[in-house]
Amino acid sequence: MSVIVQKFGGTSLADTDKIKNVARAVVREKKLGNDVIVVVSAMGHTTDNLIKLAHQISEHPSDREMDMLMSTGEQVSIALLTMAIQEMGYSAVSMTGAQVGILTEETHSRARIVDIKTDKLKEHLGEGKIIIVAGFQGITAKGEITTLGRGGSDTSAVAIAAALKVDRCDIYSDVEGIYTTDPRVVPTAQKLKEISYEEMLELARVGANVLHPRSVETAKQFSVPMRLRSSFKLDDLGTLIIGVNEMEIYKPVTGLACDNSQVRVVICDVPDKPGNAGKLFTLLAKYELSVDMIIQSYARSHDNTNDIAFTISKDDLTRFCGFKDEIMKLMNPSNIHIDEDIAKVSIVGAGMIDRPGIASMMFETLARENVNIKMIATSEIKISCLVEKFNANKAVQALCKTFELDGAEAAIVKGTLPD
Amino acid sequence: MSVIVQKFGGTSLADTDKIKNVARAVVREKKLGNDVIVVVSAMGHTTDNLIKLAHQISEHPSDREMDMLMSTGEQVSIALLTMAIQEMGYSAVSMTGAQVGILTEETHSRARIVDIKTDKLKEHLGEGKIIIVAGFQGITAKGEITTLGRGGSDTSAVAIAAALKVDRCDIYSDVEGIYTTDPRVVPTAQKLKEISYEEMLELARVGANVLHPRSVETAKQFSVPMRLRSSFKLDDLGTLIIGVNEMEIYKPVTGLACDNSQVRVVICDVPDKPGNAGKLFTLLAKYELSVDMIIQSYARSHDNTNDIAFTISKDDLTRFCGFKDEIMKLMNPSNIHIDEDIAKVSIVGAGMIDRPGIASMMFETLARENVNIKMIATSEIKISCLVEKFNANKAVQALCKTFELDGAEAAIVKGTLPD
Repeated sequence: MSVIVQKFGGTSLADTDKIKNVARAVVREKKLGNDVIVVVSAMGHTTDNLIKLAHQISEHPSDREMDMLMSTGEQVSIALLTMAIQEMGYSAVSMTGAQVGILTEETHSRARIVDIKTDKLKEHLGEGKIIIVAGFQGITAKGEITTLGRGGSDTSAVAIAAALKVDRCDIYSDVEGIYTTDPRVVPTAQKLKEISYEEMLELARVGANVLHPRSVETAKQFSVPMRLRSSFKLDDLGTLIIGVNEMEIYKPVTGLACDNSQVRVVICDVPDKPGNAGKLFTLLAKYELSVDMIIQSYARSHDNTNDIAFTISKDDLTRFCGFKDEIMKLMNPSNIHIDEDIAKVSIVGAGMIDRPGIASMMFETLARENVNIKMIATSEIKISCLVEKFNANKAVQALCKTFELDGAEAAIVKGTLPD
Repeated sequence: MSVIVQKFGGTSLADTDKIKNVARAVVREKKLGNDVIVVVSAMGHTTDNLIKLAHQISEHPSDREMDMLMSTGEQVSIALLTMAIQEMGYSAVSMTGAQVGILTEETHSRARIVDIKTDKLKEHLGEGKIIIVAGFQGITAKGEITTLGRGGSDTSAVAIAAALKVDRCDIYSDVEGIYTTDPRVVPTAQKLKEISYEEMLELARVGANVLHPRSVETAKQFSVPMRLRSSFKLDDLGTLIIGVNEMEIYKPVTGLACDNSQVRVVICDVPDKPGNAGKLFTLLAKYELSVDMIIQSYARSHDNTNDIAFTISKDDLTRFCGFKDEIMKLMNPSNIHIDEDIAKVSIVGAGMIDRPGIASMMFETLARENVNIKMIATSEIKISCLVEKFNANKAVQALCKTFELDGAEAAIVKGTLPD
C-alpha cells in the first residue's frame, strides 16, 4: 500500500462547497487503495482577515502573537475538511502541527522545520484513518507555536512526505501544472509533464510564483517525488517534479520566466579601493536585504572609479532607502541611482549544462528584437537578462519562439513535449 | 502582591475597539500593583459563525472535530488581546489551554477539568508578564484538544484562580452584577453587593442565566472569591460571590427567578405497582434526559392508579417525544399529557434555613393574587412553584413586594440592601 501526501491551498478551500470538493479528491485517492495524509492551508481570505484584525490593534504586532493568531486559520481548515470526509463515511482525524510534532527552530513567523515526529502519524495510518494536518505551523521544543513563513504549507507537506518516505507528494492548487512560461503572457505556453527540482528551483527564484523554493529544496534534498496539479481537474496529472536523472526527456531550455518585482540600484563612481564592494554587501546583509543580480564594472582608468549595480525586491525598496545615507558615507559614490522600470527575463533548463551556445542564442534573439540588455546573470542551468520593462513582453515572445516553448511549434517540429 | 484572575466574555471582545477597551481594564488592574491572569472567550459571534460553517458541512459533526474547530475562537482572542496590551507598553504573553496545561477528561465538547499545571503560569508571572489564557479549552493526557461546554470560560477562570489560590476572580460581562430578580421584569430590582455561592447556584439552576452553575460550584469548592462585574463600567464593583459565613448581611430571601424554558409532562393513571416510577426515571436517564420537578400523586383508591408529573427542558421535548411510545408500553398509563404553558417561579435565600414560614408567605402571596400553583419543589434554600405562564409576571411582581426584593421599598423599610 502506497502512502500519498496531498496538499491543498487556500483557494481550493475558499468555502464549504470547495472543502467538500477537496474531501472528494481525498476520498478518491483513498479509494485507489492508498494511505492518505492531507496538508491544508487556511481557507481563502482567512489569513488576510486575521492580518487586518491584528493591524487594527497594532501597527507592528509581535511575531509570537502573530503566529498564535495566524495558526488558527489552518486549524479551522483541518476541522472542517475532516468533518467533510467523515460525512462521506470515511474515518479521518485532524492534527495541528503541535499534535503531529512538527518541531521547528525557536524563531517566530519564519521558523524552519528541524524534525517531524512520525509515531502518531503511523499510528493513525495503521488504524486506516485519513489524516488531515495543519500546514504552515509547527511547535518549538518549549511548546511555542510557530509559523513557517511564505510557502509554509507546501514545505509542511514535503517535509512530512520526506519524514515518512512516502511515494508521492501532490501539491493541489488552482493552476494545472508548470508551464514553459506564463500562459497569461504566451497563450500557447505548454504544460510540462516533468521538470527537475533544479529547474523548478531556478524558475521559482526568477519569479514563477507557483511553488515556494523552500518546498522544492526540501523535496530535492530528500528525493520526494512532487506533483503540482489542479484541485479542480482531478483527472489531470499536472507536472511531476523529480530528480534530473529520473526524467524521461528534456530539452535544453525547459522554461522561461519574467519577473517584474525587482528594482535596479546603481552605486555610481565608487572609488576603486579593495574591500569597497565587501563593505557594501556586509551592510546590506546587516539589514537583512537580499540582493539578486550583482555587477561591478571595471575601474575606469581616468578617475579610477567603478559602478556597482545590483537588483533588490521592490518590497525592500523603502527599507533600502532608509540606509542610503549610510552607504553614501561608507563608499563615497557620486550618486545612488534607482531604476524601477526594469524586468528580469530568465530561461531555465538542466539541458544547458551539456550544450554551449544557449546564452548566445538568447542574446542574439534579444538583439534582433532591439531589446537592450542592462545586466546579465547566469547559473549552471539558468540565464537571466535584465531588460527595460516596456521590452519585457516582446522579449518573452521572441525567446519562446527561439527555444520552442510555445506549444504548437514545439509539438509539431520537435515532438519532444509531453502530450 | 495580589494575583487577580479576570475573565472577559465574547460581548466584551466583540470587535477590536472593544478588545482595546478590555486591554485598558487589564492594565488598570496591573497598575494597581497586582499580578494579572486574563481568561477570555471567543470574540462576539465567532462561535456562532464557526458552528454555522460546520453545519454547512455536516448535520452532526463529530465532537472531536467540533472541539478542534471551536477552540480556534479563543486562540484568536488571546493573540489580539495580548497585542493590544503590548501596544500599551506592557509585557504580556498569550497561552492556549494546551500550553498552560489545563488537563481535562477524555470527553469531547463538555470535558471536565481534572488538573491545571501552574509552573508556566508562575514562571511568566515571575517575569512580570500579564498572561492571557484561552478559556473554554483544555487538553487531554493524550494531547487531544477538548472544550468544556457551556459556561466553559467562566469555569476555566475559576479553576485557574483555584489552582493558583489567587486573591480574586473577576468575571466581566455586559451585566453589572446579580440582581434580586430580572430587572427587565421588575425595573426596581436591586443589584446585590454580595451573594453566597449556594444562593447563586440555586438562582443559576432556576433560570438566572448570569453565571453557569459549574463555575460557581468550582468557586465554592475551592473558596475562590468571585466577582461578577461590568466590562463597560469599570468603577462599579458588581456583586461579590463568597461563602455564606463570610457575608456581611443577608435577608431570608435574596433573589427571585422565573424560568420559562420548561414543559410539564404528566403520565396519567399509572397502575400503582412498586418500581413503576423507578422504571420511568431509569428510562429517562438512559436517554440522558434531565428532569427537574417531580411529583407522584397518592394512589387513587377507586382504581389504584396514580399520576406522575415532572418537568423537562423545552429543548429536550422532541427527544422525549421520540420515546413516548416506549413509556406507554412500559408503564401502561391512560395518557401522556404535555403542558407547555407553564413557568417556574423560585425564591432563593440562604436565610430560609433558620426562618420557618417563608414557604407559607410565598403560597399566601400567590393565593392572594389568584395564581394557581401546579407543582411545588423545595431545597434547603429554595422554593419553586410551577404556575400557568400567563400568571408568571403577576407572581414575580407580588413576590418581590412580599420579600422586599424591589429596591425602593427594601431600602427604605429595612435598610438591609447594599448601597
